[in-house]
Amino acid sequence: MEKQALEQLNQAVQVLLKDARTQVLAAMGQTLTIDEKTSRKDLVTNVDRSNENFLVQRLRQLDPQARILAEEGLGDQVETLAGHVWIVDPIDGTMNFVHQRNHFAMMIGLYIDGEPTLGYIYDVMADKLYAGGPIVGVTLNERPLPAPRDAPLAEGLFGASGPLLIHNKYQMQTIAQTSLGPRILGSAGVQISQVLAGELVGYLSYLRPWDFAAGRVLAESLGLVVSQVDGTPVNMLSSGAVLVATKSAQRAILAIVK
Amino acid sequence: MEKQALEQLNQAVQVLLKDARTQVLAAMGQTLTIDEKTSRKDLVTNVDRSNENFLVQRLRQLDPQARILAEEGLGDQVETLAGHVWIVDPIDGTMNFVHQRNHFAMMIGLYIDGEPTLGYIYDVMADKLYAGGPIVGVTLNERPLPAPRDAPLAEGLFGASGPLLIHNKYQMQTIAQTSLGPRILGSAGVQISQVLAGELVGYLSYLRPWDFAAGRVLAESLGLVVSQVDGTPVNMLSSGAVLVATKSAQRAILAIVK
Repeated sequence: MEKQALEQLNQAVQVLLKDARTQVLAAMGQTLTIDEKTSRKDLVTNVDRSNENFLVQRLRQLDPQARILAEEGLGDQVETLAGHVWIVDPIDGTMNFVHQRNHFAMMIGLYIDGEPTLGYIYDVMADKLYAGGPIVGVTLNERPLPAPRDAPLAEGLFGASGPLLIHNKYQMQTIAQTSLGPRILGSAGVQISQVLAGELVGYLSYLRPWDFAAGRVLAESLGLVVSQVDGTPVNMLSSGAVLVATKSAQRAILAIVK
Repeated sequence: MEKQALEQLNQAVQVLLKDARTQVLAAMGQTLTIDEKTSRKDLVTNVDRSNENFLVQRLRQLDPQARILAEEGLGDQVETLAGHVWIVDPIDGTMNFVHQRNHFAMMIGLYIDGEPTLGYIYDVMADKLYAGGPIVGVTLNERPLPAPRDAPLAEGLFGASGPLLIHNKYQMQTIAQTSLGPRILGSAGVQISQVLAGELVGYLSYLRPWDFAAGRVLAESLGLVVSQVDGTPVNMLSSGAVLVATKSAQRAILAIVK
C-alpha cells in the first residue's frame, strides 16, 4: 500500500476506535452479561461480543478484501498471513473490565503479507490511543510518540504476568528481581503501551495473537523488540510466551531464561 | 473537634493538595535529583523533599499545635498519638515517579488522640483525590464515594506486593490464586485507592505508617477493614504487613495466612 493510502487508513481506524469507545462507555452503564470461557478466570461479556461485531463490520467497510482474525470468533478463519489480515481484540483485560470497570484496552493490528503495518492500542478509560506503524509513524492521541530510551533491565520496571511470576515460569522471578520491580496490570494492551511509553523496560506473558498483534507493530516501529522467550521470531498465528522489551532488556532477559 | 471545624479543615487540606500537585507537575519538567536510601530499589528525589517541606509547612499553618510525622524526616519526632498527629507521604511510589512519571500518590492522614479522623490519597497523574473520614464522609474529586460491595476474595482482584508474592510471604501466592488474580502497581496509595473504589477486594503489603495512615482512615470510613496480617489491630507508629480489604476478603485471607 502507498504511504498516502496507509495514512488515510490510519486516520479512519482512529475514528472507528473513538466511535467504538463511545459505544463501550454507553454499554458500561447497562447490566453486563458475563460468561466464563475456559475457567472462572477467563471471561467474556456481551460488550466483548458487541464491540467485536462493531469493529469487524467497520473494518470490512474500510478494507473489504481483507480477512479478520478476532478474539471472540466473529471474524474469519485465518490460516495464513497472505494479503491484508486485521487482528482484533475488542476488550483486552476482560477481567479488569468486569471487576474494575477500568484498565482494559481495544487492540487492532494490520499485517500485510505478514508485514507489521498498522497497530492500535486504546486504553479506554484513560482515553489514551497509541496508533500507527513503521510507515506512518507512531502517535499517542495524535501527537508523535518519541521512541523510549534503550534502558537496561536493571534500570527499569518489568511488566509481569501473575501466573508466570507465581510459578516462576521462564525464570520470571529472577527477571523481576533483576529489574527494579515487577508490575502486574492484567491487560497485555495496557502493559505493552507502558513499554511503548518507557514506563516499563519489558513485558513477558503467555499471549495469543490478538494480545500482541497491535503491540508488535507499535513496539517495532519505536525500536523495541518483540520475540518469543528464547529470542526466536514470533508467529502471528500462534500463541506462546512473548517478550516485548527494549533491546538492552531483551539481552538480559534472554541470558536469564536460557 | 466539632464537625463544622473538621469540614473546614477537610476543604483546606484538599486545596493544599491541589496546590502541591501544581508544584509537583512543574518540578517534573525539571531534571530530578535522585538518591538511593537503603538500596537501588528505595529512592528519594528532590521532589519528595520539596513536596514534603511544602506539605509540612502548610499543615503547620492550618493546625499549629499538631505534630507531623513525615516520611523524609522534615516533620517532628513523633512517639505518641496524643493530640493531633498528621502523617504525611509526599510521594508514595517514588520508583514509579522516577521511572514512569506516573502511578504515584500524595498521602496525608490526621489522627486525633489516635482516632482516624481525616485521610487523603491523591493519585497525581490521574488527578483523582480521595478525601474525608468517618465524620465528614468520603469523596472522590468532591463527589461522595459509595462504599464498595463486600465482595469475597474469590470474586475479586487482589492487590499484591512484588517481594511478598515472589517469596510467598504470608501465603501470598495462595491468596492471589484464590482471588481472581494479583495486581501489582508499586504504590500503596494507588492500590489502597483501588480497594476504596471496589477495583480490588484487598491489598496486602509490608507498610510503614505513612504508607497506610491515609488509607486506613478512608477505608474504615467506607466499611472496609484494616488490620495486621494476623487480624490484630494496626499500630500507626510502627511498620509491618498490613491488610486493607473487604470484610469478606479479610476473613478468607486470615484463614489462609494462619
